[in-house]
Amino acid sequence: MNAAATLGLPVAVPSTALFTDHYELTMVQAALRGGTADRRSVFEVFTRRLPEGRRYGVVAGTGRVLDAVANFRFEDEQLAFLRAHRVVDEPTLAWLADHRFSGDISGYPEGEVYFPGSPVLRVEGTFAECVLLETVVLSILNHDSAVAAAASRMAVAARGRTLVEMGARRTHELAAVAAARAAYVGGFDATSDLAAGYRYGIPTVGTSAHAFTLVHDSERDAFTAQVDSLGRGTTLLVDTYDVAEAVRAAVDIAGPGLGAVRIDSGDLLLLAHRVRQQLDELGARDTRIVVTSDLDEYAIASLAAAPVDAYGVGTQLVTGSGHPTSSMVYKLVARAESTEPDAPLVPVAKKSMGAKLSIAGAKWAARQRDAEGVAEAEVVGTGEVPAELAGQELSVELVRGGEIVAREPLEAARERHRAARAALPLSATQLSRGEPVLPTRYLV
Amino acid sequence: MNAAATLGLPVAVPSTALFTDHYELTMVQAALRGGTADRRSVFEVFTRRLPEGRRYGVVAGTGRVLDAVANFRFEDEQLAFLRAHRVVDEPTLAWLADHRFSGDISGYPEGEVYFPGSPVLRVEGTFAECVLLETVVLSILNHDSAVAAAASRMAVAARGRTLVEMGARRTHELAAVAAARAAYVGGFDATSDLAAGYRYGIPTVGTSAHAFTLVHDSERDAFTAQVDSLGRGTTLLVDTYDVAEAVRAAVDIAGPGLGAVRIDSGDLLLLAHRVRQQLDELGARDTRIVVTSDLDEYAIASLAAAPVDAYGVGTQLVTGSGHPTSSMVYKLVARAESTEPDAPLVPVAKKSMGAKLSIAGAKWAARQRDAEGVAEAEVVGTGEVPAELAGQELSVELVRGGEIVAREPLEAARERHRAARAALPLSATQLSRGEPVLPTRYLV
Repeated sequence: MNAAATLGLPVAVPSTALFTDHYELTMVQAALRGGTADRRSVFEVFTRRLPEGRRYGVVAGTGRVLDAVANFRFEDEQLAFLRAHRVVDEPTLAWLADHRFSGDISGYPEGEVYFPGSPVLRVEGTFAECVLLETVVLSILNHDSAVAAAASRMAVAARGRTLVEMGARRTHELAAVAAARAAYVGGFDATSDLAAGYRYGIPTVGTSAHAFTLVHDSERDAFTAQVDSLGRGTTLLVDTYDVAEAVRAAVDIAGPGLGAVRIDSGDLLLLAHRVRQQLDELGARDTRIVVTSDLDEYAIASLAAAPVDAYGVGTQLVTGSGHPTSSMVYKLVARAESTEPDAPLVPVAKKSMGAKLSIAGAKWAARQRDAEGVAEAEVVGTGEVPAELAGQELSVELVRGGEIVAREPLEAARERHRAARAALPLSATQLSRGEPVLPTRYLV
Repeated sequence: MNAAATLGLPVAVPSTALFTDHYELTMVQAALRGGTADRRSVFEVFTRRLPEGRRYGVVAGTGRVLDAVANFRFEDEQLAFLRAHRVVDEPTLAWLADHRFSGDISGYPEGEVYFPGSPVLRVEGTFAECVLLETVVLSILNHDSAVAAAASRMAVAARGRTLVEMGARRTHELAAVAAARAAYVGGFDATSDLAAGYRYGIPTVGTSAHAFTLVHDSERDAFTAQVDSLGRGTTLLVDTYDVAEAVRAAVDIAGPGLGAVRIDSGDLLLLAHRVRQQLDELGARDTRIVVTSDLDEYAIASLAAAPVDAYGVGTQLVTGSGHPTSSMVYKLVARAESTEPDAPLVPVAKKSMGAKLSIAGAKWAARQRDAEGVAEAEVVGTGEVPAELAGQELSVELVRGGEIVAREPLEAARERHRAARAALPLSATQLSRGEPVLPTRYLV
């Protein structure tokens, strides 16, 4: 972690315990009364399908889940609220006051890819302590994974060019911080969001908007003030009035050492070519071109042949490019036959008519690879891991007996994602709609 | 405000100052250097269009904007971060350390409807103090208004039946709290999110999930434990195994006074009819039916003829039913000719090629009504308000000289929305895609 991350949280979260649906607490109350609260239970997080047309999912938010578990405690203020509103009874309040999660959590490490049925997270402990975590775990994974999946597609489309997340204004102010984090995991290089830099040490960038040009008496005045203050390495916004005139003024004022120009409207393909030619003619061969107008992965891909150096992406990134949530669910898949500590686990699953079927039993998962190391299938099973897949299991231990055992720097998740995506079949990086790039094979 | 709201924030936000894009601060730095930081400026928030097919927008988040403005201050921790990362220079850090917003804010009151071009919010003050608020103001209004707009459509579709927001698990954990608040403004009756109850006093509800049934040895055991603990007024979830069998067991255990049954999967139309008939035959004529499976406004409308008493809505509500953000922008529309305190305001607007045009000048807005009081047009102008529209202006004063002057209970916004929607032409409540139900007329 860098120095910034040690400065502390911009938003102190004294407790995450109320990021919880009302029914989780009433279930605890009823289970305490019914004698099932202490039954050993296994819950799993998975998706039944990927968003339509998507080739792979990206696990993101795992680090935030660990923070949420560590801060999941009912303090006096929260208990007073629950009492005042009669959410649960006094015995349950007493239980909650002492509650700390003491179970185990394992799962796909952050940045890993996933497919329909992948057991992304496993939470194991008593029924009561596991069921309480459902809402906040899903909130985090569903949101962050949706943004990371969009970011990953954009990173593929950008082919190594710089990607800047700048969607803070398009989503809830704290979702924005998590979105910047997830985008970084998915392959973005920087963010506009200062809170994301503060909290997670993600590089932040930005220079000026149209308002800055407009508050000055002329565009030249604005450029001069900006270059005087931020240096010639700055990025000047050149589309407030006439682009060609602005580029001429920009190089005139900053010199050929001008850092970059930004184009935020118009036909970006055409403008990028024109501006590049003009910059080159003015001798500003190293001045970069940044484009930032309503981009998504398709717009980025369509600019592959344009002389663009960096993309700034807002709305479509933080809203998951059409899929703002990941449809992960948190399901009880096994529980002890009785409350005895050594009672054997029984696989369980909802059996009603309808589409929402689940597979009972705690699962392992492994990625089957061909001789060249390219992934061939996501194998998910409930029994022993077959010998040929031993050592290829995807899940890692995250929490043991309530203690977090798998903290890692965000860079590790980012690097893991790059490697996991690179090991997928080539068709994973097609932007066109299609089936998941790996089939999920069940050994149950 | 009720007692819960006085218990305090579940998530303390010591400062909102870093929910800000990097470039807002570099603009302040360059403007301080360039002598334009103190120019009197008017920024406006508006949308160029509604989401495709939508008939009206709903302003939500205004109350949260006021909270954000009140807490917008750079404290030692934030300043240390900005210094360590060289975001801005020392003179700017010194300016930020003393900074408090001292300008004026007016706007459409929360719950009001809006249309393309409606000047939803006006922020007036020095350039530096106004530009700093851009990111957090847009984050809040874009997110909250998107959720409120979806909620309003669902409320129309529900025709007075109870609506419960239960999307916390489908969005960021703090976006969820704001979403519950926005849904309440848009017409929802309750939320599953305890943090939303804690922070905003919104009624919270919930009883049990499939996991609760599955952790017991039998469905009957689960129902018995729940009724014993939560009383016969509880809601029993009847679709874990066989619905008809579950309904029989539910009434057998709770008696005909059973509060409600919940159906969370399958053909809801068919099941609601069957379950109603079965409940009636068992004498449980007052037992309500709650449905909760992937609902949106269209699914709710399609159940209008079904014997359903309450809808629980998750994903589609908190993700804005296909439109998770509201595309509001924050634009400089006028600024003083010079830094003199009494310098006249000059209208300004971006003039470049491309689609992102704005109308220069500070604007008023009024809703023109016919003789029956039905809204006919959104009138937006830059000069004097015409006599026939006097007293019909939509904006109210929110902040005066940095002091918040328009706090109100959330109920007021909820009631205002109900009234504003009721005054729209009847076609506003069609769910089908179409044009905005009011034209925007410009008097400029």
